[in-house]
Amino acid sequence: MSFPRVIIVGCGFGGLWAAQALAKAEVELTVIDRTNHHLFTPLLYQVATAGLSAPSVAGAIRHILGDQRNTTVLYGEVRSVDPAKRIVRLENGDELGYDCLILAPGTTHSYFGHDEWAPYAPGLKTLEDALEIRRRVLSAFERAERESDPQKRLAWLTFVVVGGGATGVELAGTFAEIARHTLRGEFRRIDPQTARVVLVEGASRVLPPYPPELSAKAQLQLERLGVTVWPGRMVTGIDADGVSLGAERIACKTVIWAAGVASSPLGATLGAPLDRAGRVRVAADLSVPGHPEIFVAGDLASVEGVPGIAPAAKQMGRHAAKNVLHLLAKRATIPFRYRDYGQLATIGRNAAVVVMGKVKLSGFSAWLVWLVAHIYFLINFRNRLVVMIDWAWAYWTYQRYARIIMRGVKGSDK
Amino acid sequence: MSFPRVIIVGCGFGGLWAAQALAKAEVELTVIDRTNHHLFTPLLYQVATAGLSAPSVAGAIRHILGDQRNTTVLYGEVRSVDPAKRIVRLENGDELGYDCLILAPGTTHSYFGHDEWAPYAPGLKTLEDALEIRRRVLSAFERAERESDPQKRLAWLTFVVVGGGATGVELAGTFAEIARHTLRGEFRRIDPQTARVVLVEGASRVLPPYPPELSAKAQLQLERLGVTVWPGRMVTGIDADGVSLGAERIACKTVIWAAGVASSPLGATLGAPLDRAGRVRVAADLSVPGHPEIFVAGDLASVEGVPGIAPAAKQMGRHAAKNVLHLLAKRATIPFRYRDYGQLATIGRNAAVVVMGKVKLSGFSAWLVWLVAHIYFLINFRNRLVVMIDWAWAYWTYQRYARIIMRGVKGSDK
Repeated sequence: MSFPRVIIVGCGFGGLWAAQALAKAEVELTVIDRTNHHLFTPLLYQVATAGLSAPSVAGAIRHILGDQRNTTVLYGEVRSVDPAKRIVRLENGDELGYDCLILAPGTTHSYFGHDEWAPYAPGLKTLEDALEIRRRVLSAFERAERESDPQKRLAWLTFVVVGGGATGVELAGTFAEIARHTLRGEFRRIDPQTARVVLVEGASRVLPPYPPELSAKAQLQLERLGVTVWPGRMVTGIDADGVSLGAERIACKTVIWAAGVASSPLGATLGAPLDRAGRVRVAADLSVPGHPEIFVAGDLASVEGVPGIAPAAKQMGRHAAKNVLHLLAKRATIPFRYRDYGQLATIGRNAAVVVMGKVKLSGFSAWLVWLVAHIYFLINFRNRLVVMIDWAWAYWTYQRYARIIMRGVKGSDK
Repeated sequence: MSFPRVIIVGCGFGGLWAAQALAKAEVELTVIDRTNHHLFTPLLYQVATAGLSAPSVAGAIRHILGDQRNTTVLYGEVRSVDPAKRIVRLENGDELGYDCLILAPGTTHSYFGHDEWAPYAPGLKTLEDALEIRRRVLSAFERAERESDPQKRLAWLTFVVVGGGATGVELAGTFAEIARHTLRGEFRRIDPQTARVVLVEGASRVLPPYPPELSAKAQLQLERLGVTVWPGRMVTGIDADGVSLGAERIACKTVIWAAGVASSPLGATLGAPLDRAGRVRVAADLSVPGHPEIFVAGDLASVEGVPGIAPAAKQMGRHAAKNVLHLLAKRATIPFRYRDYGQLATIGRNAAVVVMGKVKLSGFSAWLVWLVAHIYFLINFRNRLVVMIDWAWAYWTYQRYARIIMRGVKGSDK
């Protein structure tokens, strides 16, 4: 007797929580991801800013799911879904049939139609992205130290972060901390403290999804750390020598893109209705209209009032798995209801903002909530312990131990 | 008043120990390295085999030497030395003048005139090399899991290590451990335990610099771990599908080169006498014949009876620095004398070989000596602590936490 075949595409928060919810189910489960690891994305900015090593925020999917006897993990990339034939197609042409499908492929960067900006402004989605940003930021200080032309030196010491959401705020705050504290006294020709970190946001305030008073506090805390915050400005050009904001121009050699995300192109292969951001307009039970056997979880799902954050993806993943079981048992599926446990964003040393229902925190208390929550949710015990040691070390010494420039990770020095 | 200018090229064990010996000297010291980090090379194989993260075995040179007020650290590559003009030339054409020079650039891989083997058989010298090897080995198991052709699957599950010195023995032993223990139970279509690890050595026994009885014990311990040890065989060809050993052929997709090292090409730019391996035949005081103001330390120095290991490089670096000070004080320089504290190589779980004077150890006792020595000599407190936790974790769980395949680190999937 063979069990129904369930495929999960993507093993981020949505996919992994769905897979674990099916651990004991009588299904033949296949989990496909184009990386071999589940990534704890809320701490990815720490890898980019040399505070944590790459393995500290990632775990091998095969290992995490190794004890689930009903589960096969495949390292591969799903290129398209054929809902009529009920198959997914992999990058090498392999086809896999399913009885139920959970799509949780996540997002990618979007340069708002300006893909030519990509080489000059890497985004932060993968471990490779994080190592590339780490390399560029650390290399910029090294290049400045060797540069004799003052204009060029200034450009190497200017860092522009485009996008004032949680990732942008975290990166800008940490860049400022690196310049002011971590590198202090280690250069002879430049003073790293003169480095300029500019955070550009198109909306009228940073952290747009947060209450306005927390946005204001976040901006204040960023400025205290030394970040120049420029809300209400649109980027109109990015090239090897700087960023254009309409008539204004910032000469800089390092630009990080934290502005836009685009849904996985897999959504479009379904032939289902999409929203403006390319996300699938799912039914109340997270299924694809017209295809009750396909569910969508995480960033690819367009659900009114549900933010694109890890806790939401986990809830959707778990819910999609539950509905798969209902469907296979020929019971009615259940509408998804998002439970809002709040949102938090860190800004830098001792500074963060937290909103939980009516509770709004900022500053040190918010930072403590952030710290405990992030260590608590890290994937396994070992990582949690090592991350705690790394952070305690970094906190007292201002040092960041992962200050390793690895060449040739992607692209090359500008 | 300006102090004499001293340049140190390379910040491995030779260069770093020389730099630290000059910390309080009245010199204007410049340390140039083409990476931004000092690398604890004896543990690099652990990064390649997913046991440690890259930052665990590397420290930012700028940070290590940050408190030396007389020292400038430059991230750059010295391309040539002009002993007549007393300048070094950097990759961008910059020239730096010196009064005294210490050359400690280390080695690179040598494919014995077969550079065409390089893409198929990466060596292990840098962090990038280690991540590339990690990626290939972990990817090979993933490819095997997805391969339906039994012949091809076998090739993906065959790993050949060329060279039976310390690095080759360490890599082969750890690959076998990964196949037998780490990955156990995590695949559904292949059994990782059927993976074949072959260690090929041209000499008649592994670990040729060790006493024959230790070589025999090392081979025994490797075979117990599941490694096929093939001494006395020369590699005659390496391509995308396997390794040729004269008439014999091993079909395999993963080959690691641990066979040959070549001296830095900087030695040749000196116009000084070189030995067959391209190392500089230094005078008794480690200076270059005809150039008393240039000293050579570490792997580039050819000194009778001194092995190419970290403790020897450190001793030479410290000695070269001392002689620089003698020279500047117009005192006679001192001949270098190597103090032999022994050699050790690890083979795998609970297995190593150690030779210290007349003491020869193998097995568990040797492994304990190796463990204590390597943790003790790790560069700073934090790394030591994290490495200890990582290893304790790995020892009890058989797990290797750095099982992260990073794409595009260098080259691409075969």
